[in-house]
Amino acid sequence: MPSVSSRGLAMPASPIRKLVPFAEAAKKKGIKVYHLNIGQPDIETPAQMLDAIRKADIKVLEYSHSAGNESYRKKLTGYYAKYNISLKTEDIMVTTGGSEAIRFAFSACLNPGDEVIIPEPFYANYNGFAVEAGVKVVPVTSHIENGFALPPASAFESLITPKTKAIMICNPGNPTGKLYSIEELEALKEIVLKHDLYLMSDEVYKEFCYDGKSFASVFHLEGIEQQAIVMDSISKRYSACGARIGCLISKNQEVMQVALKFAQARLSPPTFEQIGAEAALDTPDSYFDTVSKEYTERRDLVVKALNQIPGVLCPNPGGAFYAVVRLPIDDSDTFCQWILESFSHNGATVMLAPATGFYATPGLGKNEVRLAYVLCKEDLNAAMLCLEEALKVYPGKVAITDTAKTTAL
Amino acid sequence: MPSVSSRGLAMPASPIRKLVPFAEAAKKKGIKVYHLNIGQPDIETPAQMLDAIRKADIKVLEYSHSAGNESYRKKLTGYYAKYNISLKTEDIMVTTGGSEAIRFAFSACLNPGDEVIIPEPFYANYNGFAVEAGVKVVPVTSHIENGFALPPASAFESLITPKTKAIMICNPGNPTGKLYSIEELEALKEIVLKHDLYLMSDEVYKEFCYDGKSFASVFHLEGIEQQAIVMDSISKRYSACGARIGCLISKNQEVMQVALKFAQARLSPPTFEQIGAEAALDTPDSYFDTVSKEYTERRDLVVKALNQIPGVLCPNPGGAFYAVVRLPIDDSDTFCQWILESFSHNGATVMLAPATGFYATPGLGKNEVRLAYVLCKEDLNAAMLCLEEALKVYPGKVAITDTAKTTAL
Repeated sequence: MPSVSSRGLAMPASPIRKLVPFAEAAKKKGIKVYHLNIGQPDIETPAQMLDAIRKADIKVLEYSHSAGNESYRKKLTGYYAKYNISLKTEDIMVTTGGSEAIRFAFSACLNPGDEVIIPEPFYANYNGFAVEAGVKVVPVTSHIENGFALPPASAFESLITPKTKAIMICNPGNPTGKLYSIEELEALKEIVLKHDLYLMSDEVYKEFCYDGKSFASVFHLEGIEQQAIVMDSISKRYSACGARIGCLISKNQEVMQVALKFAQARLSPPTFEQIGAEAALDTPDSYFDTVSKEYTERRDLVVKALNQIPGVLCPNPGGAFYAVVRLPIDDSDTFCQWILESFSHNGATVMLAPATGFYATPGLGKNEVRLAYVLCKEDLNAAMLCLEEALKVYPGKVAITDTAKTTAL
Repeated sequence: MPSVSSRGLAMPASPIRKLVPFAEAAKKKGIKVYHLNIGQPDIETPAQMLDAIRKADIKVLEYSHSAGNESYRKKLTGYYAKYNISLKTEDIMVTTGGSEAIRFAFSACLNPGDEVIIPEPFYANYNGFAVEAGVKVVPVTSHIENGFALPPASAFESLITPKTKAIMICNPGNPTGKLYSIEELEALKEIVLKHDLYLMSDEVYKEFCYDGKSFASVFHLEGIEQQAIVMDSISKRYSACGARIGCLISKNQEVMQVALKFAQARLSPPTFEQIGAEAALDTPDSYFDTVSKEYTERRDLVVKALNQIPGVLCPNPGGAFYAVVRLPIDDSDTFCQWILESFSHNGATVMLAPATGFYATPGLGKNEVRLAYVLCKEDLNAAMLCLEEALKVYPGKVAITDTAKTTAL
């Protein structure tokens, strides 16, 4: 029997999904599972998006353009203009989810063996796309104690080798919720200019910025127009994760032309969902105001509840809807499995993502988990209570002093 | 400015889509273009598929399972059972189009530098996926003179090296329309058994077999259950190319588990379209009877019309809806561009795909084109007339004797 590929074996399992069998087993025992492991919002998808799909006058479900429907791409330029990002239609390629945009960016810009520096903890699937593309992720560690601030330029520069081709960020950050300031982005600009690197930015959470802080894109940086590449998605913006519609954006037309060849090979993004995505662009601002208010309240609830638990540290995330939380535990993989397999409180338990999968440096994240505050406040309250009770009885509990809290909060 | 990747530069442009700008220019001049370049059928998508999408009760457009909706996968086992293929739910993974199934098969089974032997001419995008995966396509040439019959075992075996990991076929074939017999598949079985290779089979055209001949799957071959991998898609079956729903099938659970990690990285296939695909499984047989009758008539029309043109050779395809046709021309890339740019007859012209892009051996296919008979008979008649007139005046016309016809037809 022929063997599977080495890269297949090297491919990491998703830290967000690998515990699914344990959650399913818990549910079969009648236990309610609060899913804080995955960024699947409970917010309703805008009605006009769903209506457009239902009313689409399609008799033959045809391929669309490999770069996506032109009408949609054109209309997207108006969406980005609201963020003070000036784009032409040809700067935008519609992709099958933000995932495909990342894959195209890696394949179009990086050769096998090339290195991309990414602040860790980072979205775990970057690892997967890197393995698939034969690209090496070089982590630069950010720290929970200072709220996962961008590491200093010296930390990046110490990692640069002749193989380094790009720096990649997620802003606002998954899993940290960190919102980078324009000053932090300017620091990155200096590095990519000095070392002639691509600056890739995953900006799928741009709608989710709190406390009146505004979102800064890498496209707001002057002088690196040909180096900036943005990966975007409608999954979170419109609570439309199942649509699988994202986009790859660059003003570097050589990159876009190469990416188009990868896009042509896979033919086109899904037709119905593109129609929905185009209609979703007319979603009124009030939708986002409501959503933002809701997430702010959820964040406040979660951060407050967590920091009240002895030994727990949760920085206050400035964006997205995630938090990386330090727990007084020995091993987050063991804990996240244990809480599904061996614990319940009031007939319920919590599913979390071990933070180990979000770090590339072995050993980091062992006392951290990622949670997504994508449930209603009532459920979040119950989930926080569950977690607090679980930490009281978890066999692998370790003592952690709370001194770090005062500096971090 | 950082450079794009070498693999991006090595990535071939789609021979099916690369002439699109010339077609668009022709249309702007008011010329009607008959699109025979792309396998986009004009047949209506089954109503129950579209209705299911329209009626789907979705409020939050959520991610689905990374392997696809379980209800759909389960129901698919019934679909394959009708073809005498016995599968379990876990043998099937829903993919974003057949394209993604090919990509997952390559990534899960082959390492960079590994070789896959494919009879040429083959579906051009196999090249693209191979470049992306760092896999080397080794072509074994089949010939128009014998209707693109499977090359003899000796031809395959002469190409096997320590790097050879798989043989891949497309059955019925795109671009040739060749329908492999069970005897041809048995010959492949002996090779993959002897050399311990995967046998990958793209079977997306299985509904399109003509002249009463039946379809044979690699799953019908006994003794290579762990080596057989099938890539399938609903694009052609239900004229639903824009749905981007396919599947990867293998009874080799190690392959499926590795493929699942790649699937988890990209999260899930599109939700609405999966609902449609599941409903499409109830499409009555009468739909396929009508479609098959229509395509048989179209094929007969095209084959007859082409072989009446002096110097033109078109074998009679046993399946799919393509034909590779030999034309009395110097260069198919030049010709396919010229017919769009510089020719029209009765205000119309024809878009064809140069066959060069379907061969991996340089120089082959220069006097061949692929056409897809996916238009109504009236349009096909007009397109054939157009082609005949074009060949009379094409500046690069060359004399080809018609002696080969008598053996091929």
